[in-house]
Amino acid sequence: MQIRVIVPVIPYETVDATRTLYAAAARPDAEISVVCLDQGPVSIESDYEEALAVPDLLTKVRAAEHEGMDAVIIDCTSDAGLSPSRELASIPVVGPGQTAMHLAAILGHRFSVITVLEAAIHPFYRLARLNGLEKELASVRSVNIPVLDLDKDRERVVGALVEQATRAVTEDGAHVIVFGCTAMMGLAHQVELALAERGYAVPVIDPGVAAVKLAEGLVDMRLSHSKRTYPSPPPKEIVGYEVGL
Amino acid sequence: MQIRVIVPVIPYETVDATRTLYAAAARPDAEISVVCLDQGPVSIESDYEEALAVPDLLTKVRAAEHEGMDAVIIDCTSDAGLSPSRELASIPVVGPGQTAMHLAAILGHRFSVITVLEAAIHPFYRLARLNGLEKELASVRSVNIPVLDLDKDRERVVGALVEQATRAVTEDGAHVIVFGCTAMMGLAHQVELALAERGYAVPVIDPGVAAVKLAEGLVDMRLSHSKRTYPSPPPKEIVGYEVGL
Amino acid sequence: MQIRVIVPVIPYETVDATRTLYAAAARPDAEISVVCLDQGPVSIESDYEEALAVPDLLTKVRAAEHEGMDAVIIDCTSDAGLSPSRELASIPVVGPGQTAMHLAAILGHRFSVITVLEAAIHPFYRLARLNGLEKELASVRSVNIPVLDLDKDRERVVGALVEQATRAVTEDGAHVIVFGCTAMMGLAHQVELALAERGYAVPVIDPGVAAVKLAEGLVDMRLSHSKRTYPSPPPKEIVGYEVGL
Amino acid sequence: MQIRVIVPVIPYETVDATRTLYAAAARPDAEISVVCLDQGPVSIESDYEEALAVPDLLTKVRAAEHEGMDAVIIDCTSDAGLSPSRELASIPVVGPGQTAMHLAAILGHRFSVITVLEAAIHPFYRLARLNGLEKELASVRSVNIPVLDLDKDRERVVGALVEQATRAVTEDGAHVIVFGCTAMMGLAHQVELALAERGYAVPVIDPGVAAVKLAEGLVDMRLSHSKRTYPSPPPKEIVGYEVGL
Amino acid sequence: MQIRVIVPVIPYETVDATRTLYAAAARPDAEISVVCLDQGPVSIESDYEEALAVPDLLTKVRAAEHEGMDAVIIDCTSDAGLSPSRELASIPVVGPGQTAMHLAAILGHRFSVITVLEAAIHPFYRLARLNGLEKELASVRSVNIPVLDLDKDRERVVGALVEQATRAVTEDGAHVIVFGCTAMMGLAHQVELALAERGYAVPVIDPGVAAVKLAEGLVDMRLSHSKRTYPSPPPKEIVGYEVGL
Amino acid sequence: MQIRVIVPVIPYETVDATRTLYAAAARPDAEISVVCLDQGPVSIESDYEEALAVPDLLTKVRAAEHEGMDAVIIDCTSDAGLSPSRELASIPVVGPGQTAMHLAAILGHRFSVITVLEAAIHPFYRLARLNGLEKELASVRSVNIPVLDLDKDRERVVGALVEQATRAVTEDGAHVIVFGCTAMMGLAHQVELALAERGYAVPVIDPGVAAVKLAEGLVDMRLSHSKRTYPSPPPKEIVGYEVGL
Repeated sequence: MQIRVIVPVIPYETVDATRTLYAAAARPDAEISVVCLDQGPVSIESDYEEALAVPDLLTKVRAAEHEGMDAVIIDCTSDAGLSPSRELASIPVVGPGQTAMHLAAILGHRFSVITVLEAAIHPFYRLARLNGLEKELASVRSVNIPVLDLDKDRERVVGALVEQATRAVTEDGAHVIVFGCTAMMGLAHQVELALAERGYAVPVIDPGVAAVKLAEGLVDMRLSHSKRTYPSPPPKEIVGYEVGL
Repeated sequence: MQIRVIVPVIPYETVDATRTLYAAAARPDAEISVVCLDQGPVSIESDYEEALAVPDLLTKVRAAEHEGMDAVIIDCTSDAGLSPSRELASIPVVGPGQTAMHLAAILGHRFSVITVLEAAIHPFYRLARLNGLEKELASVRSVNIPVLDLDKDRERVVGALVEQATRAVTEDGAHVIVFGCTAMMGLAHQVELALAERGYAVPVIDPGVAAVKLAEGLVDMRLSHSKRTYPSPPPKEIVGYEVGL
Repeated sequence: MQIRVIVPVIPYETVDATRTLYAAAARPDAEISVVCLDQGPVSIESDYEEALAVPDLLTKVRAAEHEGMDAVIIDCTSDAGLSPSRELASIPVVGPGQTAMHLAAILGHRFSVITVLEAAIHPFYRLARLNGLEKELASVRSVNIPVLDLDKDRERVVGALVEQATRAVTEDGAHVIVFGCTAMMGLAHQVELALAERGYAVPVIDPGVAAVKLAEGLVDMRLSHSKRTYPSPPPKEIVGYEVGL
Repeated sequence: MQIRVIVPVIPYETVDATRTLYAAAARPDAEISVVCLDQGPVSIESDYEEALAVPDLLTKVRAAEHEGMDAVIIDCTSDAGLSPSRELASIPVVGPGQTAMHLAAILGHRFSVITVLEAAIHPFYRLARLNGLEKELASVRSVNIPVLDLDKDRERVVGALVEQATRAVTEDGAHVIVFGCTAMMGLAHQVELALAERGYAVPVIDPGVAAVKLAEGLVDMRLSHSKRTYPSPPPKEIVGYEVGL
Repeated sequence: MQIRVIVPVIPYETVDATRTLYAAAARPDAEISVVCLDQGPVSIESDYEEALAVPDLLTKVRAAEHEGMDAVIIDCTSDAGLSPSRELASIPVVGPGQTAMHLAAILGHRFSVITVLEAAIHPFYRLARLNGLEKELASVRSVNIPVLDLDKDRERVVGALVEQATRAVTEDGAHVIVFGCTAMMGLAHQVELALAERGYAVPVIDPGVAAVKLAEGLVDMRLSHSKRTYPSPPPKEIVGYEVGL
Repeated sequence: MQIRVIVPVIPYETVDATRTLYAAAARPDAEISVVCLDQGPVSIESDYEEALAVPDLLTKVRAAEHEGMDAVIIDCTSDAGLSPSRELASIPVVGPGQTAMHLAAILGHRFSVITVLEAAIHPFYRLARLNGLEKELASVRSVNIPVLDLDKDRERVVGALVEQATRAVTEDGAHVIVFGCTAMMGLAHQVELALAERGYAVPVIDPGVAAVKLAEGLVDMRLSHSKRTYPSPPPKEIVGYEVGL
């Protein structure tokens, strides 16, 4: 099967690392391709940046379906553009934030999200509410490191993640940890082991990896999102965008 | 005071009627100006169309604040782009959907939304959930008339609104009615009277008018949205948009 | 338009200050009149005192409608007697507590109420639940100053409000502050500025002022509460009260 | 033990029947005394009437404690004045509505309330919400018979109760039935048997009887309501009421 | 009336104390008999142990009804086997956890549960959710003493209960305390007095005693659980258990 | 990887069909083994039967981990014994009911469960509540065919499923359908196509297949349930069961 990962930002230095991480997460029969945007922000840390990422993301979603992809993953834990993408596509479009939150609810009582910056905290409360999982969310915490710095000092990032996850467990009552940025991809197992060494046996979920597993499973099951929830938009004049539904 | 109404669609035939209706809703000391988009859809009936309306809407929001407006109203009951607009602006940005739902909750036990098309029903359940008012929402119903046809046969529209509102009251237990499209503006009082004649004494809320009243009130109170919820985005490279924060 | 403010307590020393504050909050075309009770408590800090305020409050509500008022405001953040008042009246009756809580939910993610005494904390949780806004309420805190002392040392009151609001923001995650007593009227902007100076950019809502804005807006919109939620009581023998429905 | 039942209305024709029914509900060692109000409405079918019943009810609550009663029951399923009564009293004050709703939640999945008039429907949704049991409430239905007519044709009342309870079970998914007026007292077992004969094995709860059982149990357990939730009001000037805390 | 208490563990040293405590809780006309299991764990501190207690518990429930008991109490605050027991029985089966939580919700705003071990904390959140009382639960705390040690040093147990209850009140906002293990039976009044001495006037609920009062009340009212919620299982082949429905 | 499916009933006629269906659902590198119970009921249609299935189910879970399995699936949509199984096991234990409900919430707005018998309806409301998904559950419907008859006339079963699913969509507002019995395994795609032909484009989820996909994904991700939620039971005397923790 063929899975298209759309990174909803313009190309960045470590995009090859992203490719490698997604390929490593996929099973042998799943071929991963990763594309970035032509138009949009360099990273997403606000609703404003997200809003400017979505139009070109939608172009990439349409392209993915036209090119015969079996599923699409939006590489952003805020699930940027998930709903309009699902309206456009009949193949499954997977949001890592939604996927990771539901998986966390399956694995234990209450989860905490550890994200990048303080400004990114409130949107996860909103995302949990939108997904009906507000009561399962113990807390949202930040490591206080911008997205584009996550790749620079992995050891510091791991240390900050372990520190905040520990506080989520001991102070907020979290039983499961969810990463709040796909740029933390690849660190979940390391953080889980560090927490276990401190005596906190909690699963740590990497939303990007969880999204790959959901995409693979949906393709296997020949299931996609409900077109009653995400109906195809009617043909309509739109100025400034060549969308060609 | 000066209030800017941004209609998040490209110019349409009856935009003068919109201007007149908003001016009629405002109090004497409030000057209303109405602008449309340069880029975007001709109407918003899906998340996809909304996504393509938001980038230029954000340009118009920034312009409104630069031009010294006191408040902005987004002329769409789906509150298109409300959150990124509030990140950009320090002046109040008002969403008619959010405003009308909270007003309905103030005026009585449970409300129903009457919107245009079946495809627009689910988004109002989501909007109510997002605003924490899911339990107050009795139902969402549609008149099954597209946005662009609402202006064509006002009598038929009123009839359909009265019919669906009656069913919302008698079958779904609604005590308050909320219009689910700003293109229904100007019909609330007429529908309320027709319902009263049928024996159903329920308030009928016109979200556009309610938004004007909230905007006026916020300006009077020197209140705006919380910048802890809607922090200003950091300066950042964005390809394809001249946003000039 | 004419708005009647009913203060649900017997006349008190600083009633003229209340008149001045309400008049200042109203727009030029809104004439405010303020009345107190003939029978009732000197202040409301319990459900017991509220219960003894309501019968005469109802007389004042009926009088307001008979005298041609356009709207009534009950000057108490507990919304004392709001529901029976709305049963009696066809003109809008506005509760500052309900109004301020919904306005807070509109302006940001989660709000905290700062009230007078510890004993007044629990009723705000109940009021938030009653209004369907329990999940939006971050916390209720008190300045530990009785209602009748609020006028005595305004500086101390402001200091205590700023202190508790700061803790609400930093410890409880509040993004919006709501005053929990109408006797704090007039201090919101001062407290908001002091919080901003400390680095906490949160709106501070004065329920009395918000009630004036809602009353003005409802009159403009020709909207009132739903008579399906608040049906007029049937004529009935009542001993001890000359109610004359 | 001595239990005082306060009927929050002025004396009515069948008050002796009320006495007999309460006495029959009590166990042998529980002595029941029933008092009515000196001031108040002849029946409670609105928040307005309830508001005019509460002041004298509070006098009766205080008297009950002074006379050495062990517990008080407010004979009204709307729990009129429950909260201020509990502030005044240290002995347990029991509300039949609250008691019956919690008992219903114990006995099965979702309950329906069958009350007197359409106007009394909405208050039960509010009461369920106030008690945190909104999700357990399947529906509220009315027999469309005023309180004062309930005693006139018991057979018709039973028939209407069975009819509405049947619809609550088959159309609304109720598993338990709760009477929505204490004037229906004494009919629960008869209605339960009639429902069983129709094939609907659901418990039917008489709130007045349930209140007696809770009062007896609380006295046995030496438990009362929490004074943190219902703190004693401070001494204070109150004009028009001789309350003598 | 005859009430059968089934202790869902194998016989233990202090079973006579349990008998004495239950007998003391019952009113004179209620005869209590206490039985233990023949097969099962020595104490219940996990879902695993609970699962192995239930099969023989069900045998004892069936025996209780065959022997003419009027009601059954399952002596475990986790309400082990409550649902299958109610399917088997037509006489009321009472769960102390469910009973105590609803009683706590009746007596005040939010309650905390004080249980034995940290591992027993999460199940009470689940039990509160199952009973629709999640929002009423302020916190769950543990004294960190295993069930079988509760009888060894009652003074230490009382001290730990008072300590945790104090923190529940001051840190978690509890207005009512519920014991989280029936082996704490008999200590509620002592803990309530100690809390009152510290200035915290909160009711302390002993679930075993509350269960006795509910059982007595249900028998008086001739009420039992709903057979629509707990239908009798159909006759069916079951290997390894002689259940004889 | 090796996945053990435990069917929590004694061996039945069509167990080979179950094996084939599970094998067909698994990806090539996942080896499925299916075991039944030695002790327990012939089918699970009540909490009573479930309670008698769990002890031997737990033996089978322990055996699965000892034999080196990578994950366990409990073949029952009621998730019989899920919680105690997770306490015993460190490898992931997957419940088809929980998995399917969360997957449904991911794929669309509100889902309906179509189960076997009327008596099985209420347990799905409870399961949804337990999993925090009560608000996402549009309805539960039954085909009125006992578990053991599901294999007898597949055409009739499909017809009944399509009929009830259609009503769930049109009358209850379901956007996603979930099968409420693992014995319906293999029919999802057929039912989905039939619904699409009728004009209802909704995903139909087969809980058994979804459980296989989740198990595969968890093994890939080296994730299991949280041991803070499901701590290992302490060693303890248990009479009648040779559990050997």
